[in-house]
Amino acid sequence: MNHILTEGKLTYLEHINSPEDVKKLSEQEMKLAADEIRTAILNRDSKIGGHVGPNLGVVEATIALHYVFDTPKDKIVYDVSHQCYPHKILTGRRDGFLTDEGMAKISGYTNQDESEHDFFKIGHTSTSISLACGLAKARDLKGEKHNVIALIGDGSISGGEALEGFSNAAVLGSNIIIIVNDNEMSIAENQGGLYTNLRLLRETDGQAECNMFKALGFDYHYVADGNSISQMIDVLQKVKDTNKPVVIHMHTLKGKGYKYAEENQEKWHWNVPFDLESGEATIDMYGENYNDITYNFLNDKIKKDKDVVVLTAGTPGAFGMTPERRKELGKNLVDVGIAEEHAVAMSSALAKGGCKPVFCVWSSFLQRTYDQLSQDLAINNNPAVILVYAGAISSMDVTHLGCFDIAMASNIPNIVYLAPTNKDEYLAMLEWGIEQQSHPVIIRVPQQVNAAVAPVAQDYGELNKYQVVRQGKDVAVLALGSFFGLGEEVVAQLKEQGIDATLINPRYVSGLDGKLLNDLKANHKLVVTLENGVLNGGFGEKIARFYGADDMKVLCYGARKEFTDRVPLAELYQRYRLTVPQIVDDVKRVIL
Amino acid sequence: MNHILTEGKLTYLEHINSPEDVKKLSEQEMKLAADEIRTAILNRDSKIGGHVGPNLGVVEATIALHYVFDTPKDKIVYDVSHQCYPHKILTGRRDGFLTDEGMAKISGYTNQDESEHDFFKIGHTSTSISLACGLAKARDLKGEKHNVIALIGDGSISGGEALEGFSNAAVLGSNIIIIVNDNEMSIAENQGGLYTNLRLLRETDGQAECNMFKALGFDYHYVADGNSISQMIDVLQKVKDTNKPVVIHMHTLKGKGYKYAEENQEKWHWNVPFDLESGEATIDMYGENYNDITYNFLNDKIKKDKDVVVLTAGTPGAFGMTPERRKELGKNLVDVGIAEEHAVAMSSALAKGGCKPVFCVWSSFLQRTYDQLSQDLAINNNPAVILVYAGAISSMDVTHLGCFDIAMASNIPNIVYLAPTNKDEYLAMLEWGIEQQSHPVIIRVPQQVNAAVAPVAQDYGELNKYQVVRQGKDVAVLALGSFFGLGEEVVAQLKEQGIDATLINPRYVSGLDGKLLNDLKANHKLVVTLENGVLNGGFGEKIARFYGADDMKVLCYGARKEFTDRVPLAELYQRYRLTVPQIVDDVKRVIL
Repeated sequence: MNHILTEGKLTYLEHINSPEDVKKLSEQEMKLAADEIRTAILNRDSKIGGHVGPNLGVVEATIALHYVFDTPKDKIVYDVSHQCYPHKILTGRRDGFLTDEGMAKISGYTNQDESEHDFFKIGHTSTSISLACGLAKARDLKGEKHNVIALIGDGSISGGEALEGFSNAAVLGSNIIIIVNDNEMSIAENQGGLYTNLRLLRETDGQAECNMFKALGFDYHYVADGNSISQMIDVLQKVKDTNKPVVIHMHTLKGKGYKYAEENQEKWHWNVPFDLESGEATIDMYGENYNDITYNFLNDKIKKDKDVVVLTAGTPGAFGMTPERRKELGKNLVDVGIAEEHAVAMSSALAKGGCKPVFCVWSSFLQRTYDQLSQDLAINNNPAVILVYAGAISSMDVTHLGCFDIAMASNIPNIVYLAPTNKDEYLAMLEWGIEQQSHPVIIRVPQQVNAAVAPVAQDYGELNKYQVVRQGKDVAVLALGSFFGLGEEVVAQLKEQGIDATLINPRYVSGLDGKLLNDLKANHKLVVTLENGVLNGGFGEKIARFYGADDMKVLCYGARKEFTDRVPLAELYQRYRLTVPQIVDDVKRVIL
Repeated sequence: MNHILTEGKLTYLEHINSPEDVKKLSEQEMKLAADEIRTAILNRDSKIGGHVGPNLGVVEATIALHYVFDTPKDKIVYDVSHQCYPHKILTGRRDGFLTDEGMAKISGYTNQDESEHDFFKIGHTSTSISLACGLAKARDLKGEKHNVIALIGDGSISGGEALEGFSNAAVLGSNIIIIVNDNEMSIAENQGGLYTNLRLLRETDGQAECNMFKALGFDYHYVADGNSISQMIDVLQKVKDTNKPVVIHMHTLKGKGYKYAEENQEKWHWNVPFDLESGEATIDMYGENYNDITYNFLNDKIKKDKDVVVLTAGTPGAFGMTPERRKELGKNLVDVGIAEEHAVAMSSALAKGGCKPVFCVWSSFLQRTYDQLSQDLAINNNPAVILVYAGAISSMDVTHLGCFDIAMASNIPNIVYLAPTNKDEYLAMLEWGIEQQSHPVIIRVPQQVNAAVAPVAQDYGELNKYQVVRQGKDVAVLALGSFFGLGEEVVAQLKEQGIDATLINPRYVSGLDGKLLNDLKANHKLVVTLENGVLNGGFGEKIARFYGADDMKVLCYGARKEFTDRVPLAELYQRYRLTVPQIVDDVKRVIL
């Protein structure tokens, strides 16, 4: 089957409007429906991008789940939602995979607002077992009877929340069914002792005595071929309505049914739009970018200094660290698996031990480490470096927003949070962060690759010293990090309208340049702050507090405190008055 | 031995000034030194309070560690520091347990500023393995040779960070020795499937095939009597300089050597100052308090409504939930063990499942759940209630500060963060939070038990509506939560000085009453905000931003962004200008 969708081809899917319809299929029909589900998944992924391999791998398991169980009475929680497409297709959301309108409407993540068959909005890993425990406990307290199922990938079980969940689920004393989808891959290779045991269990057809799930107290079932509908139906029928905590360990093939995805599982975990026949991306992903810039810089650095060590929590590919690059970095790269907490604590201790750790992480996943940032790192004031990617107001899914890191991390004492405005400044800050020995340093990786418009400092040891890029009067624009370009535009526009504004690159998110701010009072009436994140708890509010008892006016620009879900960036900028004309209008209203 | 310290009695300890001196002792001398260490521990604990049982249980293991290993070259990381007293005594800090001056100087937690034998400041659980991994990896990258040891209690292994650490340590490929101190207790009873396996291993003298540590890939050693110095020396000598990840599972008696602590292990995990002979507390712990108030309220509620369910993450005793009370709450109490992340996620799902969860947690430990608050709870907008205790500027150890929760939690969208100012308001908010179905609600439990000075609302559904308690002019004091009393004093003092100030109870930490704040502009020149926490990212800064473009002046009072370590509260208030005269002075300077 070539999975290229042509009109009228989906014989089975056309008749599956809810899980009820799955129950009417014969095994043979289910197999044919499985093919059509793959076609639908690949149709969406090839057109708008999305998770490929994880979804292709659980097609049979999902059919079996809906054949055996009765959702929404029975409740299935899909960990991180990377494996929820077949479920969406079988629960009335087929159009999300077939038509343009459907794709725009249906998200790539579970969402209770879309369907009664979903229970949570989920996009961070390792949460499904704890959520399932809550549903199960609620059921027991209310005296209800139904099955609660968590489907979790092997890559996700390394996260602390999942492990807390396993230990607690094991003693729940009632029905909870955890399906561990073992496709022998996380996003990249699996990392950690947990996988030693999964391998042993696979190799012994689930028979090995040394079994971590049994050790915790679970009933344990191994399914050698999780891509067999009949094997999956068998095991699910066996455990249905169990009164005990159960683990089903199913072995599946990630990417099953699409040869490129089977052959290169890491690349095809998630992909941008692509041509189905060739597997080639249909959008241009190349050009200079911060993944390459950072990798090249760190690789050069490591060649000269073996104390430098790069860390990732299960997502090397998200930072451009391809298998070849990982090989090149060798033992100076540590992938801890999906375990961000461990990564931050380990970074702190690596620094304590005399190394120079650099942990690469997305803004949205840095959130998983607040306590490690505070306790393991900041209190101990160890000089580890954390690079925060995708820290910005964005049109992402609600679970992947990158606009909260400033409020989360910059208010922790001792952390020096830097916001470079361009490539040169970024590299200078990175070099300084790695070599200095006095502070934990977080650097917010810029968005656009552009060159410096002002001389770039090499030494950031004099903390909280802002840079005046253009000296004007009346209005001072403090344009932080990736919003420096916006600041330039605002200042240029003000100039056109006869207002000679000052432009400042604050550089430091985590502290105020008191002297500079005081000096501004002499010939400025208004300070404008621009930050690429949520205002609440952010940078601008500190400026507002600083001037609280002064005559200086302050206008803070950034995002509203709200969760947004796939809202186009232009719409958000408009909503937050982050466009140049809006800002210029506001400035004029205040000072004229 | 009665452990009452009399002059000149510490024959052995007097000669132990460093671990070198431990190595000179015979086994018999070590046993006698162990008695003296217990006497010293109990001396400190009885005088100033502290961790009792955990420290008494590891006396022999610590002697053996310092007999076999060579710190600081070899490095021992003590999880949560609850078991570090014997280590402190043997590493030159004996006086911290014997003299008043020493006790004031030496903290109850490991601290690298105190001794080269400590490597981190640690006071949150479950961090030791990840930290040890970092030290071990740094050693390997630098080509050094030494042992890295993590000592972790059985209660602490249920935390996600520890489990991430175990999985990663198992594949480190070099020397790391994790000692699991199994005393069959967390702070309260152990909770979770992990303990099913520990029990099996104890019952089989470590021989059971189903062994979670072996499953992960560790070499595993069981020590039946971890309170035997010779058994511990034997096993440590066996694993010293190993080139593999090792787990030593040692069985010890919590509280060993002090009968009260052996008999009531939960009560004696940590204790206030007490009389050594009788074991009775020597300070008065009673009087009306929020533990009793909350328990009584929730217990009454549960009697009428079985959907209400109380959660704790391993610390029921910290909220006054004694074993008797736990029995009374029955299945409507869930102790998840030390697993705060699981507790928040489970609370969200309990609410989704139709229950009314109330999770009790200290401010300092709420930090462990940022991502669960955001992803599992807030994005899903489930109506769970979280009670935050000890949220305040405090004289606590640096690892237990409660001043960061406002900045951490109130900037997350959808969360309604309430700050009651008195007992009546607290109970009304708690009742409302439990019964409403629209928002995740956090309530910052007040500090002082006092009655309302103004009528207390019963419905908090009209979000962000502040309460004007006293209408004045010129100056408005917004006194948040437990600083409402301070606000009253400031307003009273201002009145004496001829300034007729307005007093406002904001009630909502997480939002602004825009209408009220705008109305204030009519006849007020200055708004003063008072919050019992760090200013950065907090409540006051939002008020300052609100008035940024207005003529209204704003003065924000709260803590500076800094880690403080056992600094007396009066000193902190002085430092932060949080005393009534300081605030009144500032107000007068601005408005007169």
